[in-house]
Amino acid sequence: MDERTALEMLSGALAHAGDDAAVIEDLVLTTDMLHETTDFPDGTTRYTAGWRAVGASLSDVAAMGAAATAAVAVYAAPEFREEEIREFVTGASEVCEAVGGAYVGGDLDTHEEFTVATTVVGRSRNPVYRSGARPGDAVCVTGTLGRSAAALRLFERGESARANRLFRFEPRVAAGRALAPHASAMMDSSDGLARSLHQLAETSGCGFSVESEEVPIDGAVREVADGRDEAFEMSVFFGEDFELVCTVPKDELTVARDASPTPITVIGEVTERGVAMDGESLPDRGFTHG
Amino acid sequence: MDERTALEMLSGALAHAGDDAAVIEDLVLTTDMLHETTDFPDGTTRYTAGWRAVGASLSDVAAMGAAATAAVAVYAAPEFREEEIREFVTGASEVCEAVGGAYVGGDLDTHEEFTVATTVVGRSRNPVYRSGARPGDAVCVTGTLGRSAAALRLFERGESARANRLFRFEPRVAAGRALAPHASAMMDSSDGLARSLHQLAETSGCGFSVESEEVPIDGAVREVADGRDEAFEMSVFFGEDFELVCTVPKDELTVARDASPTPITVIGEVTERGVAMDGESLPDRGFTHG
Repeated sequence: MDERTALEMLSGALAHAGDDAAVIEDLVLTTDMLHETTDFPDGTTRYTAGWRAVGASLSDVAAMGAAATAAVAVYAAPEFREEEIREFVTGASEVCEAVGGAYVGGDLDTHEEFTVATTVVGRSRNPVYRSGARPGDAVCVTGTLGRSAAALRLFERGESARANRLFRFEPRVAAGRALAPHASAMMDSSDGLARSLHQLAETSGCGFSVESEEVPIDGAVREVADGRDEAFEMSVFFGEDFELVCTVPKDELTVARDASPTPITVIGEVTERGVAMDGESLPDRGFTHG
Repeated sequence: MDERTALEMLSGALAHAGDDAAVIEDLVLTTDMLHETTDFPDGTTRYTAGWRAVGASLSDVAAMGAAATAAVAVYAAPEFREEEIREFVTGASEVCEAVGGAYVGGDLDTHEEFTVATTVVGRSRNPVYRSGARPGDAVCVTGTLGRSAAALRLFERGESARANRLFRFEPRVAAGRALAPHASAMMDSSDGLARSLHQLAETSGCGFSVESEEVPIDGAVREVADGRDEAFEMSVFFGEDFELVCTVPKDELTVARDASPTPITVIGEVTERGVAMDGESLPDRGFTHG
């Protein structure tokens, strides 16, 4: 059983299963697990790990257009080193503060591999789902794509300080809240732009037509990538970025753009069916979270 | 650094750090990680694992006197087997239903060891902390103690069906809510009765005097234990039970007892200082969660 099938099973027949966060009453709730071998390359500081792990859950709340209320984390490691835990908590707390939430505590577990489980609860009376995209809507992306792929390259090169900075993304909570009244569908780009578009297409029962030259590739990608094709691969397929991908009716685009504190880029539009880039079918591949 | 010191650090300087759940606005939030080597003995079904893992977090919410709103879980394993995930989700869902909450989804992670991270969010406008016990209050325990210790013995003996049943405790959410208006302090007994009393004593700045013959030892313990001393050890020190330990002003005891859907037993009273059983100092030892 692959991860996607299993994930569908884990979510069961729940309402809005497959959305970035579960919705119950006026709350949204999301949980994630990250661990050393797959998520924290050599050189990742515990400060960055705390920031990024909690940030990943905050991003899910952002993708629902919700306010971030509180975060908790389980810190699991072979041993508990004072300085590492302090750094981790500082990173976790600061990413919450950056988006108006609070890191409120956690649990510890002894585990062979450094592993972090994070949960964020947020509030929204009108969450945005993945299911509302309609043909003719504009497809928008916040910020720039490919930062995490670029960070990995820098970690490999030993440029850890810069890689850590790129790895500490700002969850788009404010943008998500600002876009929520206008967006017909929204999710985050953690599985990569290509897979995000396929997931929105599947859930909304629509298609997409996007233009590669409109994809907002991060400056760091252009710098570290070996040519244009690789830069494109890193920005469109690699994933592990935490920008918002949303659809907005065209007559609301100007208002939405003005409302969002993070710049948004229109990369194409919603169609009836098929996910195409530059008129050709865009493969449904990307990051499968280990 | 031992786990208790590290845990204090992880919680940082947060308000009410060390309580069973974090409190923010009208919400309580708690997270836990359980894993195979330390928490799920050979013979534990995935159904029981789902029930028990989510139940542990529900118990924390119960200990705050809060209503259980929603639960999420991360299921991490070396491989994803359809039947195992289905059982896990069923157990997780049923324990939520048993206490009026909802299991609303989760995440998957590939991990060498079967590991579960659970989070529950609950609601309370007047949560009960560990800090309010006052000399003269009665010390009460819900239900019976030692079930998990007895279950472990049964797992060792290969009596898995019965062991699984004992392992699936009912989180005391209804009792917690009923006791909340009357209890001056409350926590769950997951670290064992002895350690719970020491933790309440430390947080409330008080002492306890309890009587061993009043401790409500579970029938299964008497059956599997090798004599009275071992039954006592299993019920007072072993922990991993999820009953509530609370203090109640004596003039509210009758009302509290009538209100609680789970029977409560008075095992002693709050004193000025020192934790004593049968007049002798009760060691501060118990289960340290691995």
